[in-house]
Order: sequence, then C-alpha cells, then structure tokens
Amino acid sequence: MVHADASNFASGVTKEKAYRQVLQQAEALFEGQRNWVWSVHNSHKLHITNLANSASLLWHAYKSLPLPSSEVNWAGFYTLNAAKPKQLILGPFQGKVACQTIAFSRGVCGKAAATAETQLVPDVEAFPGHIACDGDSKSEIVVPIVVDGKVVAIIDIDCAALDGFDEVDKLWLEKLATLLGKTCEW
Amino acid sequence: MVHADASNFASGVTKEKAYRQVLQQAEALFEGQRNWVWSVHNSHKLHITNLANSASLLWHAYKSLPLPSSEVNWAGFYTLNAAKPKQLILGPFQGKVACQTIAFSRGVCGKAAATAETQLVPDVEAFPGHIACDGDSKSEIVVPIVVDGKVVAIIDIDCAALDGFDEVDKLWLEKLATLLGKTCEW
Repeated sequence: MVHADASNFASGVTKEKAYRQVLQQAEALFEGQRNWVWSVHNSHKLHITNLANSASLLWHAYKSLPLPSSEVNWAGFYTLNAAKPKQLILGPFQGKVACQTIAFSRGVCGKAAATAETQLVPDVEAFPGHIACDGDSKSEIVVPIVVDGKVVAIIDIDCAALDGFDEVDKLWLEKLATLLGKTCEW
Repeated sequence: MVHADASNFASGVTKEKAYRQVLQQAEALFEGQRNWVWSVHNSHKLHITNLANSASLLWHAYKSLPLPSSEVNWAGFYTLNAAKPKQLILGPFQGKVACQTIAFSRGVCGKAAATAETQLVPDVEAFPGHIACDGDSKSEIVVPIVVDGKVVAIIDIDCAALDGFDEVDKLWLEKLATLLGKTCEW
C-alpha cells in the first residue's frame, strides 16, 4: 500500500540522493498501476494521480535539502489543453495558488512547452515575458514531458532564492519527465 | 490574473474568517472560467485545476490558524473513478503522498462516498476500517461533493492532532463542496 513515508526524505543527503529517492518512489507508485484496466477517461484521471504524488515527492525532497533547494516555493505540473492548442492548464501542485492557464507564448513555462526544451532560469526577473504569479519566486526550472515528439505536460519548479537550480536538477527532473512520459497514459 | 497572494491568510483570524476567504477566493477563481469554452475532455481538466487551487487555499488557511487546525497534515481531493464504480481515485492535494485509489467500502473516505454524508472523525484509530496511509494523522473530516444526487468527489482533510475538526469545519467545507459541485463540470 502507498504510505506517506514515501515523502520522508533524510536531511543531509546530496541532491542526487534525494532525486534518486523521488525517482524510485515514483517508479514504485506507477508500477502498481500497470495491471489496472482503464478507459480513456480514466487514463486521464490516472495521470493526475501520478502527477499529484510526484508533486508531493518533489516538494518534500526539496524541503529536506540545504539552501537554495529548501527555498523551493512551488512544485507542480501544467498539462496540455487538448481543446485549445498551445495552451497549458494547471494540474496538481504543492505551494500557493497558481495561474489556471498559460499560453505557449508566455513566460518560462510557455517557452519550455513551445520549444520542448528545459528552461533553467537563475533570475526570473531577467526572463523576457516572465509571468509574476508569485512575487516571491526568484528562479525557476521548467522541464517538458514529451511523448511521441509532442509536449504533453511540463514540470514547473519555482524557488524563492536566486540561482535555485543547476545541472543536477535539470538532469534528474528530465529523468522524472521521461518516467512520467513512459508510465502514464496521456 | 490569479496571484499567489490568494493563498496568504492573516494569522489571528477566526476559523470562520479563514474559511470565508477560502470560499471568496475559490469563487473568484472559478468565476473567471465560466466564459471559457470546453470540450468534455477539458471540462475534466478544468475541475482538476479548480481542485488543485482549492487544496492550496485550504492548506494555507489551516496553516494560518491556531491549534489544532495548524496541525492539518493533508488537504485534498479524491474523485469518482468512472470506469470502476464505487472506487475513488486520488486527485490534487497538499501534503505527503497518498493512496492512489480507495474503495467505497474502506475507511473514512469510503464511508463519506458510500453514504453521501460528511464524516467528522475525532480519532481515526477508533474508526472501523480506517486506512492508515499516514501514521501521523489522528483525526479527519471528509465531505462529499454531490451533483444531481450522486457523489462525484470528496474533500479529505487530515489532522495530526486528535479532535482536529468541529461543526465549523463541517459547515464551511460543505459550503465549499456545494460551490465546487455547482461551478465545475464533472
């Protein structure tokens, strides 16, 4: 059975170790669902479930790490709005309330969705067209989830410190994006 | 535009005032969506967006309140699994990872879904069939969201203190459930 302990991260571990735990826990959570039978409608609900638990894992991982990672103030997902191309719609997250939709042309999330490339932004104020949904957010990383060459969702992490993310975050969040792309129905 | 400030709650206010802010903010967030055009598929995504922001509002409201409300350790939603009657599936939440599915016959959530009645449980250990997803949870309130006489989702709040909830929580969470039932497509 899924247990909340999966969100418990030892303090004092490296970022790599914390991310490895996120991936292992996520994989274990998703694995149990492979034998389930789902309609198209519920495939969608199933990926919401996986995104909700993934946001929780990421949030608690960051909170266990030293600065600047512990200053992460939003961790979650936007998914593609199938009815309105080039628009993202808010999915599960941990943190304060967030914009319900984001156009592909707008901000860090929009750029990641439009280019299908990770955006690592050390200072959001210096990013053209940044959406200031939360004035506390100072840096951001956005990683696209790509399935069959198409962006289906993005992982969005904000940090209240400048330079909150580096190549280690990029590497491991891209691994998580790959896992989510492979194990969820989109 | 939606702003993270909606999640900021003044400390020292009464529970009624905090809940009133949750309702007002939720109503404002949902209101902006009424003019949008949605396919059936995206109606589903839209209610996920509203549930995600509602979980955030509730979480931050509890954190602004005195004990025992500040000890809330999980706030979120389960929605009906349309493909498998009498099963709930995890939706957006704030807190540690949670069970992906819950049968109508199991635990506090299952009872609220099966009976369409709010379950206010001062001590979860004393509740027959309680699902111990997080050993830290000591009390719980679960409020069904009912549309056209049918449970479509539940609001689930856990507290790490005994007796975490009272009639005030019940009253206001039922108001939120009514708002969500009316303003979202299910």
